[in-house]
Amino acid sequence: MAFGWIDEQAELRRRAGLVRTLRPRPADSPLLDLASNDYLGLARHPEVTAGAAEAARSWGGGATGSRLVTGTTELHGELERELAAFCGFEAALVFSSGYAANLAAVTTLGPHGSLIVSDAGNHASLIDGCRLARGVTQVVGHAHPDGVRKALGPHEGPAVVVSDTVFSVDGDAAPLTALAEACREHGAGLLVDDAHGLGVLGDGGRGAPYGAGLAGADDVVVTVTLSKSLGSQGGAVLGPRRVIDHLVNAARTFIFDTGLAPAAAGAALAALRLLRREPGRAARARAVAAELHARLTAAGLEAVRPDAAVVSVRAPSPEEAVRWAADCRTAGLAVGCFRPPSVPDGVSRLRLTARADLSGAEIERAVQVIGAARP
Amino acid sequence: MAFGWIDEQAELRRRAGLVRTLRPRPADSPLLDLASNDYLGLARHPEVTAGAAEAARSWGGGATGSRLVTGTTELHGELERELAAFCGFEAALVFSSGYAANLAAVTTLGPHGSLIVSDAGNHASLIDGCRLARGVTQVVGHAHPDGVRKALGPHEGPAVVVSDTVFSVDGDAAPLTALAEACREHGAGLLVDDAHGLGVLGDGGRGAPYGAGLAGADDVVVTVTLSKSLGSQGGAVLGPRRVIDHLVNAARTFIFDTGLAPAAAGAALAALRLLRREPGRAARARAVAAELHARLTAAGLEAVRPDAAVVSVRAPSPEEAVRWAADCRTAGLAVGCFRPPSVPDGVSRLRLTARADLSGAEIERAVQVIGAARP
Repeated sequence: MAFGWIDEQAELRRRAGLVRTLRPRPADSPLLDLASNDYLGLARHPEVTAGAAEAARSWGGGATGSRLVTGTTELHGELERELAAFCGFEAALVFSSGYAANLAAVTTLGPHGSLIVSDAGNHASLIDGCRLARGVTQVVGHAHPDGVRKALGPHEGPAVVVSDTVFSVDGDAAPLTALAEACREHGAGLLVDDAHGLGVLGDGGRGAPYGAGLAGADDVVVTVTLSKSLGSQGGAVLGPRRVIDHLVNAARTFIFDTGLAPAAAGAALAALRLLRREPGRAARARAVAAELHARLTAAGLEAVRPDAAVVSVRAPSPEEAVRWAADCRTAGLAVGCFRPPSVPDGVSRLRLTARADLSGAEIERAVQVIGAARP
Repeated sequence: MAFGWIDEQAELRRRAGLVRTLRPRPADSPLLDLASNDYLGLARHPEVTAGAAEAARSWGGGATGSRLVTGTTELHGELERELAAFCGFEAALVFSSGYAANLAAVTTLGPHGSLIVSDAGNHASLIDGCRLARGVTQVVGHAHPDGVRKALGPHEGPAVVVSDTVFSVDGDAAPLTALAEACREHGAGLLVDDAHGLGVLGDGGRGAPYGAGLAGADDVVVTVTLSKSLGSQGGAVLGPRRVIDHLVNAARTFIFDTGLAPAAAGAALAALRLLRREPGRAARARAVAAELHARLTAAGLEAVRPDAAVVSVRAPSPEEAVRWAADCRTAGLAVGCFRPPSVPDGVSRLRLTARADLSGAEIERAVQVIGAARP
């Protein structure tokens, strides 16, 4: 049978304890959520959901076409201008997902004849971007500016260095300043994915590149998501106008994709305005993460010191990670569980996210549940 | 300067008359729209926009995480069940875009050691899927079942044949029955992208595979978009349960992407229910396309006979296509303008879409404007 080979793979996964299943959640889940990427607690904020609802009413359920045909509304333009200004860049371009934004940025900035230097811990979407790009990719060690220097050294022609700003699995930050220095020594561009930095790092949540003094530089391009701190869906590329114009003309995931739905643009815009008005939310997310880490460590758990709002706790094995997360769930706590093949180093973890709107009592309860359920 | 090389490419585009710019549209555009992919005229239907608004209110502005973590709501499950049932398949899986759905389907169904046979006219997202897949891709002539047979002949091991059902540029249909025959002779799977078929072809808009008697077959997998006939955003893969389970476990654009926003799921679900209740919309879209084609041809224009709701009209050159479309716009008519590199054969066209809600007077006006503006 045509797809019979799939059954063999399913059987291998079953034996390895790596079967994934979907667990639909109700609208009002009783679980305490430390699993989502809703870092600022804005996804269900009334201003954000009203932003989505009003945009759908005014503009329709969808964008109706490619951004180059009918899919660009004035709402998209407004979101792009405000997002660029907030993060300190000249221009922005919104995509239907962060994944699409990353594919676009890497493929258009890594053309034929170019060198793409990619951190070994980069997100799947950056890796897929490297695989789709016509340039040659060289993978370097994780958070390793000297490795970047060595890779750039012998290359002639365009080069771009690609890194997450905050790595999604362990929540550790990239050495942005050192990476930018390495790039500038060699005339290379720097492309960073600030999916987990926007809304959390930098002054008032303006992102990690802003915090590192790289915002608006003519050799820096940033991708962000609208689906994490901004509580919506979509992604964006921020950078010099020439880069954004280049993307409009050359990025396949821009040209051949339907524009972001107006409701998603409206929700993201409402969240952005809220964050601008309430900049303390970013610092609060970081403080919650620091507190979670301190308490987990005090309880004897192996947690990675968080650079942003992700707190990673190591588990002995995939099976025990799954059981640990399941036991947390039974006790009323939702935590992420990262296992192969979603982790670059093969180490399974619980992945906790520190939401700005978690109370002290909720943090206390989370730490208690995680400690009690430990393998 | 790091991104200085971009200026040279911009200059080449300028000289070739191929510069693309975004033109944000207002919420109430005075233009008659024959450019969007809103085939059934549902994007602004009050039930569809209410579906989006209510979903945002109930579920939040975003899905908050990967579908495997917090990003699967009961609303996603509902949409997947109803979509699968409507199109006649066992199961469905919803993605944040049709692009992401196609990348997922091709990469997971074309693993290492497999053969992927791809139609030369396939959509960019299918082509990128082939490039990302670990299997070997063989491109065959457009709509050419004997080419498919020849490609499959010598191959041992898993194979999948990949084709659009309706090709987006010229609106011509793939020879689905013949393709399925060729696949079955060789035990290959058939993967078709029904982005432009859903809502337009098949009984009541159930799609081209349904119309060809292929729905629910254990060797057929279909991708669709929620952003065209269903007036929303997103994509889906439909197929046997084993294939859907495989995607949940192996598709990178599923595992590493944030789930589709609730508003988009709500809008698509509302549109699907509307289409089920008003199946005549599909036939009306086809009738409008046939009428457009007949009148354009009678006016002496070179239009391709439409198999679905896309009507393509040839232009002498990219520059003249752009001028033609601009003149239509000045006269109050929005039409698509496809130029290199968005067209596989290098031929520029006006691309018209036949919406089910166009009146006879609107069709008349459109044909008049297009005829008067011809190069």
